[in-house]
Amino acid sequence: MQQRYRAMFINSLSGFKSANLVGTVNSDGVENLAIVSSVFHIGADPALMGMITRPQTVRRDTVNNIKHSGFYTLNQVSEQMVHAAHQCSARYDAEVSEFAETGLTPSYVSGFSAPFVAQSCLKIGLQVEEIQLLEINQTELIIGKVVLVQTDEMAIEPDGSIDIEKLGSVAISGLDRYHTTKKLTRLTYAKPDSWPEELTFSKD
Amino acid sequence: MQQRYRAMFINSLSGFKSANLVGTVNSDGVENLAIVSSVFHIGADPALMGMITRPQTVRRDTVNNIKHSGFYTLNQVSEQMVHAAHQCSARYDAEVSEFAETGLTPSYVSGFSAPFVAQSCLKIGLQVEEIQLLEINQTELIIGKVVLVQTDEMAIEPDGSIDIEKLGSVAISGLDRYHTTKKLTRLTYAKPDSWPEELTFSKD
Repeated sequence: MQQRYRAMFINSLSGFKSANLVGTVNSDGVENLAIVSSVFHIGADPALMGMITRPQTVRRDTVNNIKHSGFYTLNQVSEQMVHAAHQCSARYDAEVSEFAETGLTPSYVSGFSAPFVAQSCLKIGLQVEEIQLLEINQTELIIGKVVLVQTDEMAIEPDGSIDIEKLGSVAISGLDRYHTTKKLTRLTYAKPDSWPEELTFSKD
Repeated sequence: MQQRYRAMFINSLSGFKSANLVGTVNSDGVENLAIVSSVFHIGADPALMGMITRPQTVRRDTVNNIKHSGFYTLNQVSEQMVHAAHQCSARYDAEVSEFAETGLTPSYVSGFSAPFVAQSCLKIGLQVEEIQLLEINQTELIIGKVVLVQTDEMAIEPDGSIDIEKLGSVAISGLDRYHTTKKLTRLTYAKPDSWPEELTFSKD
């Protein structure tokens, strides 16, 4: 396979992915935003999230800022933000802020150094715990501990789960496809002796 | 936060996730299927995919089988398979095949030892490359090399990307929500001096 065809094909294999903007700031105070589709859950207690850095999706600025400051934000991308979020993958110079270039608004929480994206409906503040080099292809696995979450309370169900569809969050497939979602079902905890059933709380 | 509430909440933070069934076989020939939502892209060349093992989602059987045989399959979950796929998360005994219990059909490719799920529209055969223990919470990162892909050619675009929405693939959010998707847009490669535009190939 030719290189670009191969990248398109292989990037499609992993299925639907989350869309997040990583917010960081460098030692000169220059804010940076990068779009990532490789954020994943590592554990609930302690609350840990991982992401894989790749030259195409996470700018070296982001990694350098995380290493230097120890803090970063993840801002879930909603339908209204898709074009601006995608534009953050352009190779701007290090001294350029993607906030200024894309019209997204930085917002800060007292005592937390990294910038959030005001337009995002689910904002997460993380403290870096570990950065592991994956020798196999020289990408890096960044593991962060969740220290702060901001979202709309109306999206939090009585059991603690967040209905991210209510927030307008989008899914990514491949390198450049954005999708809205429609809830198919929510299923009861699976047990060997019964078949899963529809689980409902609210009137959705 | 109470433990279950916390698990629900933290598992919701990572956004939309892919739904895959991991197919393996043990040394006695017992087939195993487990549902995972933590599959992610690591690199295109070599073609590498990662997943995080967690007691709740990937049975120890799966990890043991992968370690022993060196091979496994990822089978993307489509709308028709959602209940059966979810049921694979029930704690069946090690000698029980989730294929038999859920009505999913094992299928094999000559020369590849792990079972595929016949009903899946995107089947990937992988050879394990590396298993890394994440000391921070004792989960494991399994990295596999893609050695085989089976899908419907009609879903492959001229540029190599796969339109997984055409395949009926679903997205997961939290621990138990399943979603179908609707394409919002496909955007051109981002450049600093222009705004991303809609990218189209076919008539969709």
